[in-house]
Amino acid sequence: MTQVGTTERTTIVLFSGDLDKSIAAFIIANGAAAYDHEVTIFFTFWGLNALRKDQPVPVKKGLLEKAFAWMMPRGSKKLGLSRMNFAGAGPAMIKHVMKKHNALSLPQLIELAQAQGVKLVACTMTMDLLGLQQEELLDGIEYAGVAAYLGDATEAKVNLFI
Amino acid sequence: MTQVGTTERTTIVLFSGDLDKSIAAFIIANGAAAYDHEVTIFFTFWGLNALRKDQPVPVKKGLLEKAFAWMMPRGSKKLGLSRMNFAGAGPAMIKHVMKKHNALSLPQLIELAQAQGVKLVACTMTMDLLGLQQEELLDGIEYAGVAAYLGDATEAKVNLFI
Amino acid sequence: MTQVGTTERTTIVLFSGDLDKSIAAFIIANGAAAYDHEVTIFFTFWGLNALRKDQPVPVKKGLLEKAFAWMMPRGSKKLGLSRMNFAGAGPAMIKHVMKKHNALSLPQLIELAQAQGVKLVACTMTMDLLGLQQEELLDGIEYAGVAAYLGDATEAKVNLFI
Repeated sequence: MTQVGTTERTTIVLFSGDLDKSIAAFIIANGAAAYDHEVTIFFTFWGLNALRKDQPVPVKKGLLEKAFAWMMPRGSKKLGLSRMNFAGAGPAMIKHVMKKHNALSLPQLIELAQAQGVKLVACTMTMDLLGLQQEELLDGIEYAGVAAYLGDATEAKVNLFI
Repeated sequence: MTQVGTTERTTIVLFSGDLDKSIAAFIIANGAAAYDHEVTIFFTFWGLNALRKDQPVPVKKGLLEKAFAWMMPRGSKKLGLSRMNFAGAGPAMIKHVMKKHNALSLPQLIELAQAQGVKLVACTMTMDLLGLQQEELLDGIEYAGVAAYLGDATEAKVNLFI
Repeated sequence: MTQVGTTERTTIVLFSGDLDKSIAAFIIANGAAAYDHEVTIFFTFWGLNALRKDQPVPVKKGLLEKAFAWMMPRGSKKLGLSRMNFAGAGPAMIKHVMKKHNALSLPQLIELAQAQGVKLVACTMTMDLLGLQQEELLDGIEYAGVAAYLGDATEAKVNLFI
């Protein structure tokens, strides 16, 4: 926070809704923030699931939107693995070893990111498509489209799509 | 188009043959092109499937090449989803909500990219391996290898692998 | 090796344990190295499997670590495809066409990368979590965490997450 126009920037598009990829995204984001990078994570498509609140929020939805809401994992505690998911046994194993090694869980990594000022941006176009509403996502999130992402990315050197 | 050597560049390696990831790639590419970036999408491995023509093209192929041609989706209308594919029900749902929200379909996004001058480059090494021939891919595509991709990427700030 | 502080850098986070994605990562890395880029591949999560030795190495492990070691592919010859894996038939097909076209296999691509001075870095945090030990990985590998990766990435223009 002490730089004069020389702050490093890092952006991540989190497209994936997998637990392991989301953890990787937040570890990189938190690492970059710890080195004083301005960090943006742009959540799009399945990546938005990590931002959903644990509990259903009473909002009005059409039939298709209800179907999406029901089929997609509700929040960071419900995500599956990109491989070796084994109907949920894989995530349980990973969470177990992470706890054993005192590694932060995904919900804790998200909290840390917010505490460090990582900008969490929900892709409004995907929200429209999947019928997700702001009330259903975590507090403290920003809402924007691909133009805002590109604005940040062109200022950054490290731009990842996860 | 008004810059003097300061044009921003964006490159995307499209490795994935998934509908959702291909849509994300083209939305980012079209967004960047709208902001006057010079944009390259380098299609490699399964990503090439988005460039295949809808209809079989009569070309001579060996047995393995025929097998690949038959097993892989033929063009941007046939791609599946990276998750929630449900034997084709998922892509139908996504296409339905995209139409409902007046979002461009993948074939339309590809057309728009070409109209905006986005450089679509098919990876010749993968074409050799999978036995894909130029006649089988969309018109207006360029053909090159990883060296050409790296040439563009080292001039760009936003480089994504999707 | 002739530059004066202007060496291009390229970094790749190899998160995926898929054969096709690992091949893509090493083709890009070797291409960049051939153009005198300083290249780092940071192997994390399933990506570490490409670095495992073919043969089991006698090390002491807990039960969960043994389970991971047994479930995950042991080395670059055992990886599966991200799609069309067909219980191992897909990788065999890909390896067959690569051999037919005189393309380097993944083990050869790894060797070439090491010969070209590509820095192969194993993510120590993931090693801890999955219970992988240095003796189990290829020789000539470096060991570091996300901070070291970010250090290299902020010096690079081409940064990919695969």
